[in-house]
Amino acid sequence: MYLTQTLRRAVQTAGPRTATLFGNRRRTWTECAERVARLAGALQGLGIGREDRVAILALNSDRYLEYLYAVAWAGAAANPVNIRLAAPEIAYTLEDSASRVLFVDDAFAALLPVLRPLLHSVDHIVFMGEGAVPEGCLDYEGLIRASAPVPDAEAGGSQLAGLFYTGGTTGKSKGVMLSHDNLVYNALNVVPLMGYDDASVYLHAAPMFHLADMASTFAVTLAGATHSFVPRFDVEAVLATIQRERVTHTLLVPTMVNLLVTSGKVPAYDIGSLRRLLYGASPMPEAVLTAALELMPGVQFTQGYGQTEAAPVITVLAPEHHVKGSLRLRSAGQAALGVEVRILDGDDRELPPGTVGEVCARGGNVMRGYWQLEEQTRAALRSGWLHTGDLGYMDEEGFVFIVDRAKDMVISGGENIYSVEVEGAIYQHPGVQECAVIGIPDEQWGEAVHAIVVPRPAARLTPEEIIDHCRALIAGYKLPRSVEIRAQPLPVSGAGKILKADLRQPFWEGRGRGVN
Amino acid sequence: MYLTQTLRRAVQTAGPRTATLFGNRRRTWTECAERVARLAGALQGLGIGREDRVAILALNSDRYLEYLYAVAWAGAAANPVNIRLAAPEIAYTLEDSASRVLFVDDAFAALLPVLRPLLHSVDHIVFMGEGAVPEGCLDYEGLIRASAPVPDAEAGGSQLAGLFYTGGTTGKSKGVMLSHDNLVYNALNVVPLMGYDDASVYLHAAPMFHLADMASTFAVTLAGATHSFVPRFDVEAVLATIQRERVTHTLLVPTMVNLLVTSGKVPAYDIGSLRRLLYGASPMPEAVLTAALELMPGVQFTQGYGQTEAAPVITVLAPEHHVKGSLRLRSAGQAALGVEVRILDGDDRELPPGTVGEVCARGGNVMRGYWQLEEQTRAALRSGWLHTGDLGYMDEEGFVFIVDRAKDMVISGGENIYSVEVEGAIYQHPGVQECAVIGIPDEQWGEAVHAIVVPRPAARLTPEEIIDHCRALIAGYKLPRSVEIRAQPLPVSGAGKILKADLRQPFWEGRGRGVN
Repeated sequence: MYLTQTLRRAVQTAGPRTATLFGNRRRTWTECAERVARLAGALQGLGIGREDRVAILALNSDRYLEYLYAVAWAGAAANPVNIRLAAPEIAYTLEDSASRVLFVDDAFAALLPVLRPLLHSVDHIVFMGEGAVPEGCLDYEGLIRASAPVPDAEAGGSQLAGLFYTGGTTGKSKGVMLSHDNLVYNALNVVPLMGYDDASVYLHAAPMFHLADMASTFAVTLAGATHSFVPRFDVEAVLATIQRERVTHTLLVPTMVNLLVTSGKVPAYDIGSLRRLLYGASPMPEAVLTAALELMPGVQFTQGYGQTEAAPVITVLAPEHHVKGSLRLRSAGQAALGVEVRILDGDDRELPPGTVGEVCARGGNVMRGYWQLEEQTRAALRSGWLHTGDLGYMDEEGFVFIVDRAKDMVISGGENIYSVEVEGAIYQHPGVQECAVIGIPDEQWGEAVHAIVVPRPAARLTPEEIIDHCRALIAGYKLPRSVEIRAQPLPVSGAGKILKADLRQPFWEGRGRGVN
Repeated sequence: MYLTQTLRRAVQTAGPRTATLFGNRRRTWTECAERVARLAGALQGLGIGREDRVAILALNSDRYLEYLYAVAWAGAAANPVNIRLAAPEIAYTLEDSASRVLFVDDAFAALLPVLRPLLHSVDHIVFMGEGAVPEGCLDYEGLIRASAPVPDAEAGGSQLAGLFYTGGTTGKSKGVMLSHDNLVYNALNVVPLMGYDDASVYLHAAPMFHLADMASTFAVTLAGATHSFVPRFDVEAVLATIQRERVTHTLLVPTMVNLLVTSGKVPAYDIGSLRRLLYGASPMPEAVLTAALELMPGVQFTQGYGQTEAAPVITVLAPEHHVKGSLRLRSAGQAALGVEVRILDGDDRELPPGTVGEVCARGGNVMRGYWQLEEQTRAALRSGWLHTGDLGYMDEEGFVFIVDRAKDMVISGGENIYSVEVEGAIYQHPGVQECAVIGIPDEQWGEAVHAIVVPRPAARLTPEEIIDHCRALIAGYKLPRSVEIRAQPLPVSGAGKILKADLRQPFWEGRGRGVN
């Protein structure tokens, strides 16, 4: 398989139709492919060859999509950088991957003076923004104009298509190596689960560097559908774009769904074109999901559970299982068509339904490994299964229930307390905008459950009120021992995940580890 | 990928639901998997190991499906034999593949006395029929009872999943080597195009040995749907089974569709459950398709074009393109999601839309090669593309129009005449039941167009009438020079393809070749 085959199929079956819609720019698949082949020629002209890394640090745009395909067309490997990283973290990503070219847009050009002295591997910086080209940068449109279209380099199969640095939520970022086969295989799984066809319009609302959004990127092209973009998530920009471009499909991470729900803005827009909303990348509190289902009754909600290492989809909760109040609404759904899922114990033996173990996956979508980290690769892929680091169980019909990320579990007095469960209880309080539950050091219990709660604009909350509210919903030993009410939003990663490591850090400072 | 992963997914997501329905037998996926694991144990007990060939010669049944999975579970390779072959041809298939075990049912047990002396590689014959076990045969149910379930041998990836001997329509039969990846990849392509889900009931109406039916076999399992069976195609058996089992999906080859249409029996049955009919394996005359669309207005027709070497699907004509009278109704549709399709010239250069060349395909579904035929493998897969041997062109939106099989083209007076085009014209005559157009030797023109026509029961046809009828539809140089009116049905292969080589043979006898 070749990542570029998705583009070729779009040209063959939908050449004159709209490929990309961004602001006032509209391009057909034929035009898009022509620009991709020229940009690939420019990259080859800069000396980029097979599996060389070409990085990008940019907000969402039609050019982000062109970059992804041009890198593949040139035979090289993409390195889409997390847009929330600080300069030293960006530099780490670029240096660790030995990226030779970096694409930046207006939003990140200002970082260049800080970044440049930190970079040694990067030979060329391509400015892909709308404004004036910064000094020392190559001009994106100029490169396309100056280069002839080149034939596809036909990199494919198990060759490296991209390096995707994960997380930044805990520890040192690891480069996940995804091959052409991985990404096309995921696309083949995603087309049926999202129902993409050549009449679909997909809105890139979450950041394009992240696999949550990229889960759909190549699937949308494969179906000959249309890509639409907002530079970054913003409630009104998303709603206005859905209305204007008649968007049919999108992906939002739970924090974005929460922002939509609590904004009060949805009824002001005509979002009747929206048929399917995929959500994932972090646990969705049931109260937020229920509110979203009520607010957008015409939209089919689909949950995707996965991770970068699985390119990314592992399980799917289909629209027909989004029944309010049903137990399965709390699950992550069933194995995607081409993915095998098992719950394994510490010795990698399969556990029976109902027993909590590590969620593991196998299939053509599972990564080649971590970039230059053989030991971590062996550990993650031991016994031939991808070990997700998530704890969960399966019911009798293969529905997977994630109980927690292994590292987010609080162990208090010897009891395992799954923070998502406590968070789910807190979110049911009508005055709660956001919350996070972490373990903090406790002399008596090892760890104690600590909740950080952001109230809704008009709401006034007290710690006692939150604890009382939870008392009716969860067992006594799981109740927060302490609650902090915060006015500011919680810190989130580029993908919209709440950065629990940051929240945990002040409590654990000087202890050398983050659990007791 | 593993062929057995499709079975594991069905057990995980649909364990207690119906896997197979055959006559009065109904088994759940959990039961089916248990029997498969026991039968695999029995095969291992007979000394069958990795990639060893295990053959079958049987009509359709639930046990045929169990056989396919048990062979994969044991790590071995299936060899499903064409049920229309004569004993020496069957023996060739078994010997060429060095099959070590042969499964036979009641319908073929009578052949054993003739077959046995011709077999050297076969150590064991398993009788899988309903009657008394013939002497010297092992008992299918006895083997299952006596063996414990064994763990999956985990054969997968590029390992051999099956040897599928093609055609018999021309020349010596070749064993197509399909891997686990090939068959699972095809299944991933077929699920979305057929819309299989866990509520689907698929009827195996065409012979299960053939890739036309097997296109769906593993896809149906992957979706957790139900398999239903008729032992062999019979208009009334098919209609009665659709009515009784509430069948939702099936595949029929064009000759079967023609038999349904001309039988007059369809209105006597309630086939309201049937939602999707896949057809393929040989060209569908437009008149037959149009009649079928009118007769079954509630059924979505889908054409699959492919071949055994592509495991098998290459292109798909979706239901929305089945518009009566539209030009695209004559096409084979567009590339399946995961398959790349190109029209190549004799030097394997891509041809522009509208130009006739060889239809070629690339993707995870393309065979490993022909069994022990390196030269033919190299020729078929040269330049990294599967060369189908079919001639066709593509329109501006990627719809492929097959004009003929390379070897079915008639070259008369230097003009290429595509026999399917002439056949399409003849089929538009209301008195025609079946027809075939071949090239026969002609002193003046090299070859001349010859038509063999079988009239409908009540119709009386003359050669002159057929030629006059065609005159209004096709160019003069394409008109049949001679027409034979035949009372008997035309000879067909096990897959229902008209055996043109047999029709051609008397005309070319003693000439050493089949074209001039």
